[in-house]
Amino acid sequence: MEKPVIALAMGDPAGISPELTAKLVALDEAQRAARIVVIGDRRLYDEGAKVAGIASSPDEFIDLKNLDPASIKRGVASKAGGESALANYRHALRMVAEGKADAVCFTPFNKQAMRLADASYDDEIRFTASVLGFKGTATEFNILEGLWNARVTSHIPLSKVSSSLSVDSIVQALDLTATALRAAGFEPPRIGVAALNPHAGDGGNFGREEIDIIEPAVKKAKAQGIPADGPYPADTVFVRAKGGQFDAVLTMYHDQGQIAMKLMGFDRGVTLLGGFPFAICTPAHGTAYDIAGKGVANIGATRAAVLVAAGMARRQKAGADPVKG
Amino acid sequence: MEKPVIALAMGDPAGISPELTAKLVALDEAQRAARIVVIGDRRLYDEGAKVAGIASSPDEFIDLKNLDPASIKRGVASKAGGESALANYRHALRMVAEGKADAVCFTPFNKQAMRLADASYDDEIRFTASVLGFKGTATEFNILEGLWNARVTSHIPLSKVSSSLSVDSIVQALDLTATALRAAGFEPPRIGVAALNPHAGDGGNFGREEIDIIEPAVKKAKAQGIPADGPYPADTVFVRAKGGQFDAVLTMYHDQGQIAMKLMGFDRGVTLLGGFPFAICTPAHGTAYDIAGKGVANIGATRAAVLVAAGMARRQKAGADPVKG
Repeated sequence: MEKPVIALAMGDPAGISPELTAKLVALDEAQRAARIVVIGDRRLYDEGAKVAGIASSPDEFIDLKNLDPASIKRGVASKAGGESALANYRHALRMVAEGKADAVCFTPFNKQAMRLADASYDDEIRFTASVLGFKGTATEFNILEGLWNARVTSHIPLSKVSSSLSVDSIVQALDLTATALRAAGFEPPRIGVAALNPHAGDGGNFGREEIDIIEPAVKKAKAQGIPADGPYPADTVFVRAKGGQFDAVLTMYHDQGQIAMKLMGFDRGVTLLGGFPFAICTPAHGTAYDIAGKGVANIGATRAAVLVAAGMARRQKAGADPVKG
Repeated sequence: MEKPVIALAMGDPAGISPELTAKLVALDEAQRAARIVVIGDRRLYDEGAKVAGIASSPDEFIDLKNLDPASIKRGVASKAGGESALANYRHALRMVAEGKADAVCFTPFNKQAMRLADASYDDEIRFTASVLGFKGTATEFNILEGLWNARVTSHIPLSKVSSSLSVDSIVQALDLTATALRAAGFEPPRIGVAALNPHAGDGGNFGREEIDIIEPAVKKAKAQGIPADGPYPADTVFVRAKGGQFDAVLTMYHDQGQIAMKLMGFDRGVTLLGGFPFAICTPAHGTAYDIAGKGVANIGATRAAVLVAAGMARRQKAGADPVKG
């Protein structure tokens, strides 16, 4: 079977993205896993390779000639930088849509630069949906060394979390999670569901969402063939997952998962945009403006992002499981 | 200076408490730190020593003769077990109140047994306040290897957290935390304050509690000489603390701290009942009914509890800092 093709979009030019791109291309492990097509400005790539001290060249480079490195000041978010990152990413997405690649990876974006380039820019998920004309539900997964985290609610006030939960929103999140896990080769996937209240509500003493919403959702999901287990108290579900009991934890709100994942070292992890018809992965860390141009950027998370995307694309090519169920 | 005296109350008899008590007494490190007076039934202690394979005997044992080991089935919560634990603990508290000891420690209680013994039993803090006739504010601190966690709200539904926060409740929690840290020798204490909302509210986009309540509380606390720093996003404040930036983290709600502490291994940690006129410490783990009588209970958390209590009592005796400011 042919290797899957990964369209690798160069991210924000003022941070470590150029260096990471060059370091990634030089990794035997990444090259064995996929044919990597880099999308960006070749001058910027060459500068990244120089910073990284790397002589190797990508098998294929799509030179959009959209950014003169001389116009970029390292460590400073700029409109031109944001525009180039968006153009590279858009090109990568279209390559898959047109059948020229199987999955997309991108090196870190800078949100400030993205907004300078496009005032309406919200986040990667909405931008991706817009480029692809995608009408389904997509969500962000955080992956650290084989442990996945997805969430039912995200960037909303904590006081609105309870009223934003419903049986259907939880079942939908479980469905997305199970589908993405299967696409990554977890069969059957084991998903632990976090409770909302302390001590999982202590039988209704500290809140009833477990009884009224989460337990019925887990039951409904199971009845639909979606594996789910819980709800477990939020302060033990990650201890269980870390101990190997679950492949993924579904949390009810942002910090419930992020506190645990960041403490376990999620900056070394991968963000997967899940729900789209193909895998889209990026390192979980940011542009690291403070170390831009120094050659010390750690390739670990970018490497992991490419390996997750390549694994999902390989399975999809083999027809084992669709990325989108 | 004389060693401080710790009144060590034997906890629930059906779990690992008897074994832990005997193991603790046999520790040179604990004996060097304090004179340990054990309170319980001598027959139960002797059985614990036998389980632990330990021949040593406590310097002083107050035999309340309140529980025949033959009446207790290991691994089963009972009214008699709860009554003995409550009696031992009450006796220990009164010893300090009467000037016969400097601090209290207890081996794990079983909440079910406590409630069988006393239907109105709520938690250790309320029981302690009732025995001591204490009218002030007390709170639970979790301590893991030098990192402390306190919280503004605790056993309430997550949906009620926001409406339960006020400038005054946060300032009061910061005051209690700073006082307890100073009593334990942290001078000046460094307290990181967690935000409530994701990304600390992102400048008001995902909630205004940071702007309207937490920031003013931190400012007010500082103006009163209470050290405090924040609010920091909840998913990074523990990463900072783990890295050595803070001695304590004040969290806004239960799971915010417990997710992090349990993941870091808080079962190896210490629970301190803070705000009372003297130190009261217990291991953070429970009665471990599943391993009762097997001799395999880990003494680490109980040892840490005694060392924290002894350190606070020693400082208090030296007049360095009152435990209660």
